Amino acid sequence: MEITSDRQGIERALQWASKGMFTTTPNPRVGCVIVKDGQVIGEGHTQPPGQAHAEVQALNDAACRGADVRGATVYVTLEPCSHYGRTPPCADALVKAGVARVVAAIADPNPLVAGQGLEKLRAAGIAVTCGVLEDEARDMNIGFMSRMRSGKPWVRMKAAASLDGKTALHNGRSQWITSDAARDDGHWWRARACAVLTGIGTVLADNPQLNVRAVDTPRQPRRIVIDSQLQISPQARILDGGGTWVVAASADPEKQAQLRERGAEIIVLPNAHGKVDLPALMHELGRRQINEVHVEAGFKLNGSLIREGCVDELLLYLAPSLLGDAQGLFDLPALASLDGRKSLSFHEVKQIGPDLRILARFI
Amino acid sequence: MEITSDRQGIERALQWASKGMFTTTPNPRVGCVIVKDGQVIGEGHTQPPGQAHAEVQALNDAACRGADVRGATVYVTLEPCSHYGRTPPCADALVKAGVARVVAAIADPNPLVAGQGLEKLRAAGIAVTCGVLEDEARDMNIGFMSRMRSGKPWVRMKAAASLDGKTALHNGRSQWITSDAARDDGHWWRARACAVLTGIGTVLADNPQLNVRAVDTPRQPRRIVIDSQLQISPQARILDGGGTWVVAASADPEKQAQLRERGAEIIVLPNAHGKVDLPALMHELGRRQINEVHVEAGFKLNGSLIREGCVDELLLYLAPSLLGDAQGLFDLPALASLDGRKSLSFHEVKQIGPDLRILARFI
Repeated sequence: MEITSDRQGIERALQWASKGMFTTTPNPRVGCVIVKDGQVIGEGHTQPPGQAHAEVQALNDAACRGADVRGATVYVTLEPCSHYGRTPPCADALVKAGVARVVAAIADPNPLVAGQGLEKLRAAGIAVTCGVLEDEARDMNIGFMSRMRSGKPWVRMKAAASLDGKTALHNGRSQWITSDAARDDGHWWRARACAVLTGIGTVLADNPQLNVRAVDTPRQPRRIVIDSQLQISPQARILDGGGTWVVAASADPEKQAQLRERGAEIIVLPNAHGKVDLPALMHELGRRQINEVHVEAGFKLNGSLIREGCVDELLLYLAPSLLGDAQGLFDLPALASLDGRKSLSFHEVKQIGPDLRILARFI
Repeated sequence: MEITSDRQGIERALQWASKGMFTTTPNPRVGCVIVKDGQVIGEGHTQPPGQAHAEVQALNDAACRGADVRGATVYVTLEPCSHYGRTPPCADALVKAGVARVVAAIADPNPLVAGQGLEKLRAAGIAVTCGVLEDEARDMNIGFMSRMRSGKPWVRMKAAASLDGKTALHNGRSQWITSDAARDDGHWWRARACAVLTGIGTVLADNPQLNVRAVDTPRQPRRIVIDSQLQISPQARILDGGGTWVVAASADPEKQAQLRERGAEIIVLPNAHGKVDLPALMHELGRRQINEVHVEAGFKLNGSLIREGCVDELLLYLAPSLLGDAQGLFDLPALASLDGRKSLSFHEVKQIGPDLRILARFI
């Protein structure tokens, strides 16, 4: 395949970036394609933390092919890093390799980079272009971008409902409102998240594992349970395999010891009302390098998270059915005026099997 | 523009058919394009009832251009009629004109035609093809098709809701949940319907005109009010201009006389529970040559119509907002099992301004 435009180069680099969708976290997913005389001579994507970044992968790939990268153009989905992290700066590697031009989809908002990577390239006489397919590149790393900019993860709330906005019958039945295809698709979104978050209500009602099963992934996201009063049973399946974070509003040394034996960590973060302080939790998750949070919770916790401004995006699966008098989506208070509504904008709508998948972002 | 395939010919004929979207009722909307040596030599669409059908319009157009239609191919969106209605049979006109080939998108389900039009053409030595872009052609005349097949109109229920399925605040406020663009689009759907149907609840609460204002149309759809106990005020705006049908469950000679003075007709159609018999009404509307019914009603009547199996399609505008604890879409009973849900299938989803327009059909 010949690369004849910057757009084509970045499109291909984005395809490479997506190969790291489930594995690079907490690092961004980055893809890199090296082109010379219109031909791809090296390509790659960011490896799991501590291993090579996309640019180094692509340079190594070129070396394996015996290709000469001097004078080549490098397409990369994020500004090359300029700092020593777990690996040396990619900008230095590109300079040393003698490439002629670097096209980056977007700048890196990481304060340790933030334009310095591109600056380093320019200072070495490399031609630099930044800003190609920016929206796609931003979406690819929306959680990393959010954490770098605000210190908080990108919070995506998944819900499934009938066309009249109902998530379960009054007797609790909800299996299944949406199709197998929609539920499998939901696992893809779980898999790309750093953490899957739910509430004690869901744990007590459904005892879910909340791990990724329907898609292959070498990494399981961390599981987080909001459980103000530490009601969770030490036998709960969400603790299986260890590593679960249980977030409480008050300490309970005995229960905490039981949970720790199951490999869980207990985070105590109360607000003034004896509940978990959800906004403070989001800052804490950012501090712990969580980029994307995937919420799968019930009516009440969903409502609390939205009310407290902790949700960035809805991932809503709508089934083509009507359930009538049944459980609604989100526990939000009655309004006196439409001015009080929560506003979003539709980001993407797609049919998944017989259902509709709606991505909508709070504005 | 050269026509090089049957698909292109029917596509162009469908564009012509759509010019009759607001005017041909109770006749179907039909478009016709005559092609010779790849060139369009005549085209037209069905005129208002009693005037020329599409085929005759296209033949006349060819005559005006001085074109010779002998040996030409005729693309028509519905099988040419074979019977004397308000106008003579189009099949005869095509035979007489000496065309060589007729391509029809779909057969006419009208029992007075039903293949006889195509048969007449074949008997005259004309090559006939039927079945090109059938879905599009069927949708164009979905109400006519429904009435010919079942004796009942196609009933499309329009509703507007927030993303959590709410249509109004508990204090009744609903102006406006959706955008200007969505409301204008809703008027286009009103305009194509033979009748706009609402309930006495909406008339008492909002006193709407329910006419078409946001799009130009030479014909206003008939308005129908379901009003079991004849509670409507003779001053109600929905009676302005006359011609409104008020459907009651029992007679009230004095009130009926007042309404008649306003140009309304009263239809009395009770069921065993002292309410309007909605399924019987649909048969009555079919008998009265109503092809498409556009329902704009409230929570209760919407629920009754769906419960009683009187709705074929939902036209749902979803705004990107959350209203929380508020009025839902349809008054449908609580279910004990998901088996009792009403099932639909998504037919079309489109963004209209900031909102989403969903067409879903009951199955």
